[in-house]
Amino acid sequence: MAQIDFWYSIGSTYSYLTIMRIDRVAQDHGLDVTWKPFDVRTIMMEYGNSPFIGKPVKAAHMWRDIARRAPRYGLSPSLPAPYPLNDLALPNAIALLGMDEGWGVEFTRAAYRRWFEEGLLPDEGAGLRDSLREAGQAPDATIERAQQPEPAKRLADQTRQARDLGVFGSPSFVVAGELFWGDDRLADAVQWARDGRLS
Amino acid sequence: MAQIDFWYSIGSTYSYLTIMRIDRVAQDHGLDVTWKPFDVRTIMMEYGNSPFIGKPVKAAHMWRDIARRAPRYGLSPSLPAPYPLNDLALPNAIALLGMDEGWGVEFTRAAYRRWFEEGLLPDEGAGLRDSLREAGQAPDATIERAQQPEPAKRLADQTRQARDLGVFGSPSFVVAGELFWGDDRLADAVQWARDGRLS
Repeated sequence: MAQIDFWYSIGSTYSYLTIMRIDRVAQDHGLDVTWKPFDVRTIMMEYGNSPFIGKPVKAAHMWRDIARRAPRYGLSPSLPAPYPLNDLALPNAIALLGMDEGWGVEFTRAAYRRWFEEGLLPDEGAGLRDSLREAGQAPDATIERAQQPEPAKRLADQTRQARDLGVFGSPSFVVAGELFWGDDRLADAVQWARDGRLS
Repeated sequence: MAQIDFWYSIGSTYSYLTIMRIDRVAQDHGLDVTWKPFDVRTIMMEYGNSPFIGKPVKAAHMWRDIARRAPRYGLSPSLPAPYPLNDLALPNAIALLGMDEGWGVEFTRAAYRRWFEEGLLPDEGAGLRDSLREAGQAPDATIERAQQPEPAKRLADQTRQARDLGVFGSPSFVVAGELFWGDDRLADAVQWARDGRLS
């Protein structure tokens, strides 16, 4: 089965549109998706990129663009969502722990649903804790586990791997060595996985 | 007939994909397009944006992304094209002069074809001069006319108008007050012009 690696960071706005639909899209096209949480902020700081922070005009377009496109995917976000997150390291270390243990996708979707539909940040408070519960995990114990050195190192390694693949933003898709950046390139990534080219 | 205002700057890379197909797309959907050249660099400098200059990783994705998508539109660019331009003011002042006089679209397409398919910069030399000739204009006289105070002021006014509409990048589309940014939003702009919403 053809394969899409889905690189994302909890904290990225456009990733909402991808996270809520990629598994359905992949299933419709007979593709396999591997979810790869990483810390996009580390890479952006290294490259001197910050697409929306301190850029109100560009950010206004981003929110309006998401609002216009969400109904296409059956989504009803309440926008703008609170932004930016204080911390990308914790929620993405938790997501990665969850991927290793089988509950990461459910946690990620729950966190984005709360963030974009209920206005709860995914890196703290009820947004984080209720999303862990929804994924079947005890909040306190899981947060404590994710703050140990090993999960932090695992996230740093995965982030380095993303950077080595040329990933510089979230969401990104890697298909047979080809990098596609942006929710709006999911259809291209799917086509590449099926045909090895766009048409 | 529903209307799309197409804001662009000669000098923008992704605008190649739009410039070479927007009139055909609009015709297929029964829409009217008004081409609006402006100086995106002035706005980007004001906002502290520079999407690709000094960002080799993001620029590499941009060129690859254009290369992958071009065949979809029947285009065969030779990439990467020389980038960035030294001067955005002159070619866009010329394009705007041409819009006022009826040869601006032909000049813009000719300049992009030379830039992206023959590797000739559109702000100088043969890239500029032969594109003017192709649009039926005498190169020396037209360049001299475009360097007068009036065309420079006209471009500054049009650039201010773009900024007042929230335009921060090229290509952008404005449909009934809605701003769409990026070649990859042309389909959204077309749908909005027809239906007043996306689906």
